[in-house]
Amino acid sequence: MNRVQTLSRAVGVIALLWCAAALAQDTRDWLPSWQAGANRDALIEFIESTSTPGEQGYIKPAERIAVFDNDGTLWAEQPLYFQLVYAIDRVKELAPEHPEWREQMPFKAVLEDDMNAVFAGGEHALLELVLATHADITTEEFAQSVSDWLKTARHPVTGRPYTEMVYQPMLELLLYLRANGYKTFIVSGGGIEFMRVFAERVYGVPPQQVIGSSVSTRYELRDGKPVLVREPRINFIDDKEGKPVGINQHIGRRPVIAFGNSDGDFQMLEWTTAGEGPRLAAYVHHDDAEREWAYDRNSSIGKLDRGLDEVAKRGWLLVSMAEDWKTVFSFESN
Amino acid sequence: MNRVQTLSRAVGVIALLWCAAALAQDTRDWLPSWQAGANRDALIEFIESTSTPGEQGYIKPAERIAVFDNDGTLWAEQPLYFQLVYAIDRVKELAPEHPEWREQMPFKAVLEDDMNAVFAGGEHALLELVLATHADITTEEFAQSVSDWLKTARHPVTGRPYTEMVYQPMLELLLYLRANGYKTFIVSGGGIEFMRVFAERVYGVPPQQVIGSSVSTRYELRDGKPVLVREPRINFIDDKEGKPVGINQHIGRRPVIAFGNSDGDFQMLEWTTAGEGPRLAAYVHHDDAEREWAYDRNSSIGKLDRGLDEVAKRGWLLVSMAEDWKTVFSFESN
Repeated sequence: MNRVQTLSRAVGVIALLWCAAALAQDTRDWLPSWQAGANRDALIEFIESTSTPGEQGYIKPAERIAVFDNDGTLWAEQPLYFQLVYAIDRVKELAPEHPEWREQMPFKAVLEDDMNAVFAGGEHALLELVLATHADITTEEFAQSVSDWLKTARHPVTGRPYTEMVYQPMLELLLYLRANGYKTFIVSGGGIEFMRVFAERVYGVPPQQVIGSSVSTRYELRDGKPVLVREPRINFIDDKEGKPVGINQHIGRRPVIAFGNSDGDFQMLEWTTAGEGPRLAAYVHHDDAEREWAYDRNSSIGKLDRGLDEVAKRGWLLVSMAEDWKTVFSFESN
Repeated sequence: MNRVQTLSRAVGVIALLWCAAALAQDTRDWLPSWQAGANRDALIEFIESTSTPGEQGYIKPAERIAVFDNDGTLWAEQPLYFQLVYAIDRVKELAPEHPEWREQMPFKAVLEDDMNAVFAGGEHALLELVLATHADITTEEFAQSVSDWLKTARHPVTGRPYTEMVYQPMLELLLYLRANGYKTFIVSGGGIEFMRVFAERVYGVPPQQVIGSSVSTRYELRDGKPVLVREPRINFIDDKEGKPVGINQHIGRRPVIAFGNSDGDFQMLEWTTAGEGPRLAAYVHHDDAEREWAYDRNSSIGKLDRGLDEVAKRGWLLVSMAEDWKTVFSFESN
């Protein structure tokens, strides 16, 4: 071994030691918006033990999968699911091309800003609104439309863009998980192609890690150029029993961690924690009328009833917005 | 700055330089089983230029998506799709529980080893075989059954386990792509849950990056434990026009690179190369009767007719097994 080789090897060894020291010294607080307490401790203890080699309960990187509901878990969902606001705005935008809507429910009610009449039509009316505004266009046109809408639409209470209505503590948790080798997925009843427009930029979750409800699409050539056309037909509803089905279809592996906020997430949490080895499930509880909203058992949006009954006996965490979160939205601290 | 800090900083700088030097010196041949020539050059040139910052045509890591058909592209598909061999073996295994099959086509033909009679039943007969053998069990039971089968089943011509019937040059290409920041996906007409049993171990492709055909699944509780039950009903066929649909559903982003071997892959290659910026599409051509098989326009399995007509004018690569590959299967060189 000549002197250059010796020196090169010495530098290599030093570099490795330096990296090891840097890793060992990582005492960064990844969850600054979480109040000290049992829930914060439980999250840190679980994430550290499952990602530290040699610890009991260590999980291989490939199996570190964390799934998150979106509406009410990563961003707000009051006073109306944001995607429904998009559908309503889109009905108004498209109305000139559809004069028949002026006399046709539920479009008539939307155009007259009579939301009570819209809701009186039940799920069927909402589905009709979504299909009329989300279909018969290409996937690229739809993404462009959502992107344009997100730029100008503002939340009726806070006046903020909808993409700022995200929970700061959850953003921190997503980052913390990824820093520990977890892959973070969204598993939401919301539209898969709606969420993909902003999920990468806002949450750091790439499109292939977004799972949601979808309409069917059809491949066709237009002027020789291939497009995918969104059809006015439901392909998949990613809610309740659909969530484990969607997880299996897209991920093909049982998650280790699941976060939700409503009874629509119950089966996802149940499926996650039924796996062997360490698992963690948590409900975000909307109990902060001052900084966000307070609702659970009696809400039509984000109803949490069975979940509240069973969360303790199943060993799931109940995260209190009021008590566990120092900050709810990042703009509060601006 | 005290002496320890100064030393620490110096070591950090040296470590960074050492890493940079190590990266710059990577002259490893990633494609040793590929013959020198235009196709090998085109692959290397494309992969290097799209993944090297500052190069014209550089693509951000998040957008580096490469998709691969499986049957006939990553592993062999002759004399019969391997999944169909599984279905046939499974019919024989299940036959004692189904005495009615002895008189019922196509099961009768399978039990009498009369494959001509099976094929005479057309696609409908094959579908019936698949549904009867792939459904009415849980996802976990199915995965276990495939895993058990792969351990003992042997290819009728080579006598090798089916998971050794994979193309060495394609394994090298998958590794080379991942080393350059590409995410590699399988997009196959084969069953998504069939492929996931071996894709991670054999190809290094994790379950969430496997896209395929599927049956519907149903969430239910059995003795209080949640399971997903595979239903005897097709959910999605990931072939022809279905491939871009499946890519959009699972990845949500247009691939940069696509590899196939049959007309069933045509739309996937068309969709990939219709995107803006650099794109690469290639067909693997089965023209090596000596080391593998030779078939294209007139084959019922892996038919390549329209693809052969259009590959040149569309600027896609036509990879010749006979001329471009030094080795086909890794066991050749054992």
